[in-house]
Amino acid sequence: MKVGFIGLGIMGAPMAGHVIAGGHQAFVQTRSKVPATIAEAGATVCANAAEVAAAAEVIILMVPDTPDVEKVLFGDGGVASGLTPGKTVVDMSSISPIATKDFAARIESLGCDYLDAPVSGGEVGAKAASLTIMVGGKAEVFDRIRPLFALMGKNISNVGEVGAGQITKVANQMIVALNIAAVAEALVFVSKAGADPTKVRQALMGGFAASRILEVHGERMTRRTFNPGFRIALHQKDLGLALQGARVLGMAMPQTAGAEQLMQVMQAQGWDQLDHSALVKALELMADHEIAAEGA
Amino acid sequence: MKVGFIGLGIMGAPMAGHVIAGGHQAFVQTRSKVPATIAEAGATVCANAAEVAAAAEVIILMVPDTPDVEKVLFGDGGVASGLTPGKTVVDMSSISPIATKDFAARIESLGCDYLDAPVSGGEVGAKAASLTIMVGGKAEVFDRIRPLFALMGKNISNVGEVGAGQITKVANQMIVALNIAAVAEALVFVSKAGADPTKVRQALMGGFAASRILEVHGERMTRRTFNPGFRIALHQKDLGLALQGARVLGMAMPQTAGAEQLMQVMQAQGWDQLDHSALVKALELMADHEIAAEGA
Repeated sequence: MKVGFIGLGIMGAPMAGHVIAGGHQAFVQTRSKVPATIAEAGATVCANAAEVAAAAEVIILMVPDTPDVEKVLFGDGGVASGLTPGKTVVDMSSISPIATKDFAARIESLGCDYLDAPVSGGEVGAKAASLTIMVGGKAEVFDRIRPLFALMGKNISNVGEVGAGQITKVANQMIVALNIAAVAEALVFVSKAGADPTKVRQALMGGFAASRILEVHGERMTRRTFNPGFRIALHQKDLGLALQGARVLGMAMPQTAGAEQLMQVMQAQGWDQLDHSALVKALELMADHEIAAEGA
Repeated sequence: MKVGFIGLGIMGAPMAGHVIAGGHQAFVQTRSKVPATIAEAGATVCANAAEVAAAAEVIILMVPDTPDVEKVLFGDGGVASGLTPGKTVVDMSSISPIATKDFAARIESLGCDYLDAPVSGGEVGAKAASLTIMVGGKAEVFDRIRPLFALMGKNISNVGEVGAGQITKVANQMIVALNIAAVAEALVFVSKAGADPTKVRQALMGGFAASRILEVHGERMTRRTFNPGFRIALHQKDLGLALQGARVLGMAMPQTAGAEQLMQVMQAQGWDQLDHSALVKALELMADHEIAAEGA
């Protein structure tokens, strides 16, 4: 299949590499320099997004944020100006669910299909082709594109109409943030009360408190290793999308709002470039007590 | 070993059964009638807690709440009045960490040892002898009692000094409540936004949002099965212990306080006898939107 790939950053480059390794003919374009691995793999480097759209049947986007997707799709030399009917645009970036519905409608009005397919699993998952891919869009379009997704990820699902992928990604970021806050509050509590947070974390792993976050981020908290990983500042942006969504939908998300405020504490302290597990530092500040580092 | 067991309710009866099956000689006492299975297994039924304490080397308590433990230990005909130096009191109830330190000090002043060893895993775990047991107390006492714990549970750890077991149990209840609130907010959000919460839950199970709560309680939310299980009213009591502890320790636990308020919403609606997964109903109320039942 002729596959276009726009955005070859930390995530996009390995993802495109897997698609090329899967035997597809690639047409690529990225803001900065095309990685040598992608060029050497035989990808055709295009001058702009319109050229990618003209050459490929399926055009995949993997760029940072909502305005980037808008520019790539509808800016000068954008995807929309190169599309012809029957092609499929797949946005794998993590962006606003509300903007996504608008972008999809504009692409579909050109006689093309649209999927939103954000991922979780980060750089590690992108390299290992083990990403979780949450896809919004029509079932028949999903079925057609699924073999491409299977080259990049493992847990792939069509969660609903266009926009549902981004909604699911936002829900993922909500749960991850709230589970981090849960583990952080609990570990500061036990430490301040005189118990050993490392032993407590281990004890809790066997019961209903068990989670990937308790396992991975709980350990980062007790080991005091806060190099990102995923930065607080980016996670705060995601919670902003969630709260903006809640306002549009007319619903209350008090726990998410609380976690967003904890991230605000991190920002106030200049700690928002740390890994999101460092959220524990906001609770420590509010308890005037720091968890002792494991083995210290 | 001569083991005393006080409290033979839903949890205590199967736990005592496992200890007896392990070959120990049991002396039991309970508020209501001793279950036939325990009497038939050869346990000696005592008239009061003092008799249990006089007959046994290790006295295990499994009663509902802090005042119950206080009464069993220090009331008329209580454990304290039957103890002689060198015996060990093991409180497996889930009670206040602060009261626990006081109880332990009073028992230790009689020349006896004290462990607090609350459990998680519920009735199912008690029956299957697969409880998580979180033990506070001296390492040498823990080592001596460990073989008894091994008859009742699987994940057994000494998490610190006396009181640390109860602190760990409180931390467990905090994380469970906050993870339930996290899943509830996320599923109401996705449903209100038009995505399918059942599919979203499935998609999220593969990534960092994965937890025992997403797995078990998330399914209860989408299937709308809210029979307890573990009642909101009891969980709210546990969060009360957590917040009381935070006040004594001088620390803030904003997310736990928020979750406690959501349980207050449940109470206001007369929903506090439902399973704690029903917390989703508080969020649904605040969104004026109910998740459609799976398969409906």
